[in-house]
Amino acid sequence: MTADRGFKSLDEVVHKGRAGIWRYSGAIPFAANPVTLGEGGTPLIKAEFEGTELFLKLEYISPTGAFKDRGASVSMTRAAALGVSRVVEDSTGNAGIAASAYAARAGIKAKIYVPADAPTSKKGLMVACGSEVVECSSRGEAAARAVSELKEGELYVGHAWDPFYLEGMKTAAFELFESGVVPDAVITPVASGTLILGLHKGFRELLDAGLINEMPRIYGVQGDSCAPIYEDMHGKIVGCVGSSLADGLRIADPPRRGEIVDAIGSTGGDVFIVSDPEIAISLRWLHRMGIMAEPTSATALAAFMKNRREIGKVAVMPITGAGIKNLGDLMKALIS
Amino acid sequence: MTADRGFKSLDEVVHKGRAGIWRYSGAIPFAANPVTLGEGGTPLIKAEFEGTELFLKLEYISPTGAFKDRGASVSMTRAAALGVSRVVEDSTGNAGIAASAYAARAGIKAKIYVPADAPTSKKGLMVACGSEVVECSSRGEAAARAVSELKEGELYVGHAWDPFYLEGMKTAAFELFESGVVPDAVITPVASGTLILGLHKGFRELLDAGLINEMPRIYGVQGDSCAPIYEDMHGKIVGCVGSSLADGLRIADPPRRGEIVDAIGSTGGDVFIVSDPEIAISLRWLHRMGIMAEPTSATALAAFMKNRREIGKVAVMPITGAGIKNLGDLMKALIS
Repeated sequence: MTADRGFKSLDEVVHKGRAGIWRYSGAIPFAANPVTLGEGGTPLIKAEFEGTELFLKLEYISPTGAFKDRGASVSMTRAAALGVSRVVEDSTGNAGIAASAYAARAGIKAKIYVPADAPTSKKGLMVACGSEVVECSSRGEAAARAVSELKEGELYVGHAWDPFYLEGMKTAAFELFESGVVPDAVITPVASGTLILGLHKGFRELLDAGLINEMPRIYGVQGDSCAPIYEDMHGKIVGCVGSSLADGLRIADPPRRGEIVDAIGSTGGDVFIVSDPEIAISLRWLHRMGIMAEPTSATALAAFMKNRREIGKVAVMPITGAGIKNLGDLMKALIS
Repeated sequence: MTADRGFKSLDEVVHKGRAGIWRYSGAIPFAANPVTLGEGGTPLIKAEFEGTELFLKLEYISPTGAFKDRGASVSMTRAAALGVSRVVEDSTGNAGIAASAYAARAGIKAKIYVPADAPTSKKGLMVACGSEVVECSSRGEAAARAVSELKEGELYVGHAWDPFYLEGMKTAAFELFESGVVPDAVITPVASGTLILGLHKGFRELLDAGLINEMPRIYGVQGDSCAPIYEDMHGKIVGCVGSSLADGLRIADPPRRGEIVDAIGSTGGDVFIVSDPEIAISLRWLHRMGIMAEPTSATALAAFMKNRREIGKVAVMPITGAGIKNLGDLMKALIS
């Protein structure tokens, strides 16, 4: 039932009649009846930033506009297979939207615990999908109540904890491999760490299968106002102004904190922090390339620009979320 | 240089190393160096509405959140091949956003003429991509000025006129064919008619190649406040309240009006009108399926619900635009 059974070639796990993440049905648990909205199979485009070549994996071209759809699809597929009546999630935004949409697709009720200061537009999308949204005083309270208030027949699908989420996220690594781009490095924003842990798992499976020879270095990026992974690896931040643009990354104490640090460290990667002005400049670069990213997604480019010598030559950067969801934040970033 | 050279099997035109619309490079003009953001290759999902099966083609899962990206990609690929310094477009929203993003991707300047009352969020996205936005008193004035103010070295890429746009749109028909779903009917919102004319062209090419035996019936849908195609086929609307939710369809006199009427008529299709309450109900249905459509896209479902006996059994409905772009309108629709 778990996907840790291993494989020796992707052909073994590929389902040719399916697209997106479910192309890898043989490596995903509960794959008989996918709850799908067409997630995965995202474009990979080449871009040049001041003379350095980058591969951008456009994860925002996705059913709810964020990379989380990969995980939500598998998570909700399992919930549907178990026959639960309601799923419960806690989120600042994108994960809650994804859970809401996939629960709706599966015909399962959803309750989403959010911090009250999560963007209104993101809460609105959850409500539109029929979710019950519970506002909490903080992100931490949302996480705690989502678990403590769980009732019989309800399934907690919190993306930061659910191992099935990672089974969806790992498919991004398979797609990179199939597109012929196995990078030296991947650089991505990190909050709850699902993408980093998922990529790590995906590359690990490719490595175990002998399909790649080396684990790409994984680099994480956080805003300088909330950077627990950075602080675990580099010590306490002193004297930062505090970024507000990376709203998707404000998780002070991610549940799998140690695992994320270990995953990054084991690949020889690192964590960087970036400031609001740096995010704003990077966001402008992305938009001027026609890439409709949200501010949170621009953190990775900001970090890449500062650290490209360290990061190395062939780098992949997932562009994690769509900017068309929260135009208010976007405008703020453009004006600043 | 045009794609009217014909083909006898899709294998002849398929470029296996490319994804999305450029998979059909052999049937698209100027295909040597595509200006691409990963458009096309959209998911097709099965859904059931009150006992009737429908195939939804999720066109909003696209680089700028709308089906227009197919056309904009080809249109801008040609502009880049011609080496123009600036492109000019006129649009109420989605086409202008797509033109802005693809111009940015190509490194070409863009000037977009819009009616001043176009949604602020949509104008904001054009500006974010670096476009010059020119506000006009009406949609008609925008169309007129885009052409009359054209300067040397500028290329008019107005989506309603540009034949290269349709070369992109037609790929939706190829994708349906390759997915094994050649429907009896396609039902879609219609404004400037690019999707209908593109689908018609795509199915025509499949028919000429002997790959399909019959042209699917094409049904168009308009809001009851602005329904020129409906009025051309059925006479003047009397006594309607006037819809405001179908903001993407408010083109009073589409340039290719006669062609659109002919295309629909020649397939044995029809045009329907829908009201704001009907759109609101359909939008809620879509959201409760996890489908993040914009109100304009919900018109097709509204029309399908009223006319499904006439429309027939195997119907495909493109869900044309993402609702995450204009949450204000979306909320209005949910409250009404």
